[in-house]
Amino acid sequence: MQLIVQKFGGTSVADAARMKRAAKRAVEEYSAGSKIVVVVSAQGKMTDELLEMAYSINNKPSKRELDSLLSTGEQMSSALMAMAIHSLGVSAVSFTGRQIGITTDSFHTKARIVNINDSRILEELSKNKIVVVAGYQGVDENDNITTLGRGGSDTSAVALAALLKADMCDIYTDVDGIYTADPRTVSNARRLNKISYDEILELASMGAQVVHVRSIEFAKKFNVPIRVRPSFNNGTGTLICKEVGEMENIVVSGATVTKDDAKITIIGVADEPGQAANIFHELAKEKINVDMIIQNVSANGLADLTFTVQKDDLILALETTKRIKAEEIIADDKIAKLSVVGIGMRSHCGIAEKMFKTLSDEKINIQMISTSEIKISCVIEEKQAEKALNAVHNAFELDKEQ
Amino acid sequence: MQLIVQKFGGTSVADAARMKRAAKRAVEEYSAGSKIVVVVSAQGKMTDELLEMAYSINNKPSKRELDSLLSTGEQMSSALMAMAIHSLGVSAVSFTGRQIGITTDSFHTKARIVNINDSRILEELSKNKIVVVAGYQGVDENDNITTLGRGGSDTSAVALAALLKADMCDIYTDVDGIYTADPRTVSNARRLNKISYDEILELASMGAQVVHVRSIEFAKKFNVPIRVRPSFNNGTGTLICKEVGEMENIVVSGATVTKDDAKITIIGVADEPGQAANIFHELAKEKINVDMIIQNVSANGLADLTFTVQKDDLILALETTKRIKAEEIIADDKIAKLSVVGIGMRSHCGIAEKMFKTLSDEKINIQMISTSEIKISCVIEEKQAEKALNAVHNAFELDKEQ
Repeated sequence: MQLIVQKFGGTSVADAARMKRAAKRAVEEYSAGSKIVVVVSAQGKMTDELLEMAYSINNKPSKRELDSLLSTGEQMSSALMAMAIHSLGVSAVSFTGRQIGITTDSFHTKARIVNINDSRILEELSKNKIVVVAGYQGVDENDNITTLGRGGSDTSAVALAALLKADMCDIYTDVDGIYTADPRTVSNARRLNKISYDEILELASMGAQVVHVRSIEFAKKFNVPIRVRPSFNNGTGTLICKEVGEMENIVVSGATVTKDDAKITIIGVADEPGQAANIFHELAKEKINVDMIIQNVSANGLADLTFTVQKDDLILALETTKRIKAEEIIADDKIAKLSVVGIGMRSHCGIAEKMFKTLSDEKINIQMISTSEIKISCVIEEKQAEKALNAVHNAFELDKEQ
Repeated sequence: MQLIVQKFGGTSVADAARMKRAAKRAVEEYSAGSKIVVVVSAQGKMTDELLEMAYSINNKPSKRELDSLLSTGEQMSSALMAMAIHSLGVSAVSFTGRQIGITTDSFHTKARIVNINDSRILEELSKNKIVVVAGYQGVDENDNITTLGRGGSDTSAVALAALLKADMCDIYTDVDGIYTADPRTVSNARRLNKISYDEILELASMGAQVVHVRSIEFAKKFNVPIRVRPSFNNGTGTLICKEVGEMENIVVSGATVTKDDAKITIIGVADEPGQAANIFHELAKEKINVDMIIQNVSANGLADLTFTVQKDDLILALETTKRIKAEEIIADDKIAKLSVVGIGMRSHCGIAEKMFKTLSDEKINIQMISTSEIKISCVIEEKQAEKALNAVHNAFELDKEQ
């Protein structure tokens, strides 16, 4: 018997009508003979409303208390989803993260799953119930409620799919799949039928915003096939799976531009071993993710160091950076990161060159560059983001099936 | 060192400003040298909104799922309250019912507390933290979330006060104490400085609606003094405590009228042993509380039986009653129950007579009567409720200090 994990995001359960539609999806697959585990996010803007409430009371709320507050959104959704399934005549039972033993580390608001206990889920599935799980949450070893960070419900879903050796993890969302570029920016963007974990990992971290990056890492590690599907129609969406031979022929699968990063430049830091390590050690201690890094040696044994962090982390990153002895520290949050990704890059040359030439033709200045085996990213001025994305999408003919 | 349990109801934490004001109360007592445990209800109309959400999805929602849904309201409040206390510079930590080991039976939406584990609360109090507890909730032995029914946060507060041997359980509310009658109906109603558990038990079950009846039972059992205090000013409110000698002199302490009941009359049920028992056994199985009961023997070996149940239970009670063989079953939900209560009734005569005469003078027909040691109740027509209450309040001169 097939086991399917279905995850419904906030927009897919935003009101009673959508909740019922989502429940109908679950019941359809259940009636077709599959065992079903449903993972739900908080309804619509609930998480934002809860955050707003918290900040209206305390402008620096305790992360432990934030987690306890925010986790209620998913708990509500899970209970309502069980009720919606009941109304279709099928048995269902909802669980919080804790009730099915999702234990995490203690890093509140960004916790990572350490363990899940499958006994209660298996017990209820064996009674022919649909099991509904509140996504995004767990408890640490001291029974404090934790949350997995934004997009954490995807992680919950994939982790459960891995644990239960599910045949498929369907992520229902308000888009009809993963595109070669954001269709709101690039009018001729094309939906992909299939994409590899590695490509989507690069795309997700660059802001494809459809599936959370940590859930893809999990899926890749445990080889869980994910289907990103629209909740509003029967579209087949995009399958995310391990790399297969045919993918090699596609040089560039997609392009994205993100505005989530800010740039910090440290001018005149001592150019001696350990200085850079020291800075990044301090940032790591604060759990700040550093993305791109460039270092230039300058005169007088001093160096200039530039790196990017998430905009949300900029203030904390600046405070942390100021512990370092340097001549000057400059922050710039008016940047965008343009990236192209494709497994085929491994075996094809000239991709970077083509990207740089395209931007140059459009008179777009490149501030930073980073490359991986299957990705090239350039930091550019924020206001040129959309123009740059369209130019690159066209240059690589991403609108055409390859 | 004093230990005080403070309970804040929904209106006392309805928005950021009120939440902060409540937090200030807790911090004031804490700063004066007491250990503080705060118990909170869901904010304002939250519980009603959650119920509405549930019923918009399923018109007969599962009680287990309702409990999981409703318990989020108090969890939110507790996290927000901890944040509000933090903003005043005092350490605080919030807990759900489960996190402090409030275990209950499995009767969802009306569960009763079986046990509370004090270790985590004591640990946090010993670290000089204010402990904030989400009221109204617990978990059963299978780790399903349960709720204690409407007013259950009072029960949580008093149960914690009993467990921790608190010096006082302050119940903050949107009224400034307990009155001789509802001041919205009786303009010359007077605030009581002190009232006994037994009297308030009768008053509460009759709808004084300030403190929940089960919490008073708990308080009486464990001799926990309760102070009902206004959250909007520094009024001293009303102390609820065990009976002391001076109370004996007060013949009638208060009068109430409630419209929460409905009347069921069963005409022509076989007048033989076990018939009535059978009916009430069936009702008890459905956990329907029956209040007043009258039976009249009629002709032909048949009897007429009249009893009252809560209006909420009327439909279920009617369904249950119809299992009984009878000539006719009549329901009436347009009734009111008028009651007077006072410890002094035990040693004074003529109270019932005075009440009946007062109603008679006002041309108010009495449909049912029930009496206890310290209470007399009459069922009357609903539309005469306010007139009757005022008449009785005046007849017993409740506006005057006695």
